[in-house]
Amino acid sequence: MAGLDAGPVTRVLVTGASGFVGRHVLGPLAAAGVEVHTVGRSAPPTALARHHPIDVLDGAATRALVIAVRPTHVLHLAWTVEHGAFWTSPANLDWTAATLHLARACADAGVERLVGVGTCVEYDWADGGPRPRREDDPLRPGTLYGTAKASTFALLSAFCRQSGLGFAWGRLFHLFGPGEDERRLVASLMASLAAGRPAGLASGRPVRDFLSTVEAGAALAALTLSDADGAVNVASGDAVSIADLAREIAGLAGRPDLLRLGARPDPAGEPPRMVADVTRLRTDVGFRPLRSRRERLAELWERMPRPT
Amino acid sequence: MAGLDAGPVTRVLVTGASGFVGRHVLGPLAAAGVEVHTVGRSAPPTALARHHPIDVLDGAATRALVIAVRPTHVLHLAWTVEHGAFWTSPANLDWTAATLHLARACADAGVERLVGVGTCVEYDWADGGPRPRREDDPLRPGTLYGTAKASTFALLSAFCRQSGLGFAWGRLFHLFGPGEDERRLVASLMASLAAGRPAGLASGRPVRDFLSTVEAGAALAALTLSDADGAVNVASGDAVSIADLAREIAGLAGRPDLLRLGARPDPAGEPPRMVADVTRLRTDVGFRPLRSRRERLAELWERMPRPT
Repeated sequence: MAGLDAGPVTRVLVTGASGFVGRHVLGPLAAAGVEVHTVGRSAPPTALARHHPIDVLDGAATRALVIAVRPTHVLHLAWTVEHGAFWTSPANLDWTAATLHLARACADAGVERLVGVGTCVEYDWADGGPRPRREDDPLRPGTLYGTAKASTFALLSAFCRQSGLGFAWGRLFHLFGPGEDERRLVASLMASLAAGRPAGLASGRPVRDFLSTVEAGAALAALTLSDADGAVNVASGDAVSIADLAREIAGLAGRPDLLRLGARPDPAGEPPRMVADVTRLRTDVGFRPLRSRRERLAELWERMPRPT
Repeated sequence: MAGLDAGPVTRVLVTGASGFVGRHVLGPLAAAGVEVHTVGRSAPPTALARHHPIDVLDGAATRALVIAVRPTHVLHLAWTVEHGAFWTSPANLDWTAATLHLARACADAGVERLVGVGTCVEYDWADGGPRPRREDDPLRPGTLYGTAKASTFALLSAFCRQSGLGFAWGRLFHLFGPGEDERRLVASLMASLAAGRPAGLASGRPVRDFLSTVEAGAALAALTLSDADGAVNVASGDAVSIADLAREIAGLAGRPDLLRLGARPDPAGEPPRMVADVTRLRTDVGFRPLRSRRERLAELWERMPRPT
């Protein structure tokens, strides 16, 4: 991200900067020469930003902070993310409410641009056709999480448009990266391979769009410093079947023999394809991943603790 | 509403009970034999309910109240309603957030059923076709207010479904009734006629669905005590052009000569028709207006203060 130009941005406030993706936005922002502040219950382990230990769910305290810090830009990543539980967690209502309060505080504090984070599950998963998802495709979320994200997007779009607050919404697709929950695909597969255990998977036929959190963080930093308006898919644009991704990882580990594709039933309700059209990310944000998926997977594999 | 059967309902908590519609729900609820509580900054002028002077925008206080009162049913009418300003008011974000907090409190307090209030502007106003709006028509609101209502509906639907909390959403269409803001159609027309002043209107060609707030309040009370699930249009089902409605009112006043149809330009962005399909209200709720539109207009006209 050496070429990222902060332009007139002087101060960015980031929520959720300790998270799976959030931890990767601070470096690119700081490298672009902006002053970075973070807010949340836990501080990110970095000296790149000034941390404010306030719970973003506390609307009044967060509002006071936004007014005190006077950021020009706010990148809001914080949300409930507990593995599995987040799909149906009542905390989705709390995070929707907290995000609306944050947006009002931004407008009142004279913030120039607010960037939120959405998800590919905002799209219609029942429509599993071959075409990559475009940002203006119909939204038809099937979960409370997806509904909360799509509703927040609709509300922030309408509110920011009439308030003159710049607004973008980065829709994340499938991710892998350091610190991933071990119940998720890439982390669990690498853990099995590192331990020399067979890795039982479903058919692996569904085709997905996988991006490293390192690249996703850099893309969200670039989106924040761009003037792209509205929803932007933050993804690789590369279609890969889960089976091929698993083979790629098993190849890096030198243990293709441990893969057990088809050992588990395919989960119900999963679309055959969920791949992003990344035209807006490339063209309107000007972002391209620094490294390939294979390189990012290799970095991750090299960092896996292995039995000695 | 003498025949309204409260069934297993024992205690209803009502927000917004002092409002244009809310003031008309308490009588029918009390007549059905349920214990009625109200909450909000101002108390409704009635002995039919026990009032709790708490601002519903204060999530923590409202939560504590719901837990203390332990209602079986909650009818939530409170929202920002300032004439004209409510379409774009940032307070729409606050009311969305407050409604989400209220829903969580209801689920946590063991409330059996939550009823919220939506609007015909949740529907697609660009599709001004002749078919009456059905509750499962696509929602495509064009304002912050409509977006806030449609988003709240989507979130409460998803949340209540997974929480086992009964849920209905009464979509109000066009209303008239006592205490109407004098900048609104029926109130301003009656004020002109009562003063013997000419009443300048637009073409009056758009066809609408007008319901008395007295009937709307009774319908929302019936919806609360029913087990109808999801969105239900709360409307008359009668299509009337604004011109015919104006002639009806001028006829009641005996002053058709004061009507100036076409004296003003038609407002932009208004659909030619916005009429409700009321099958669900009739069949699933079992509600029929007690009096006709003409009778309700006549009652209203009789109560107009006139120069002596």
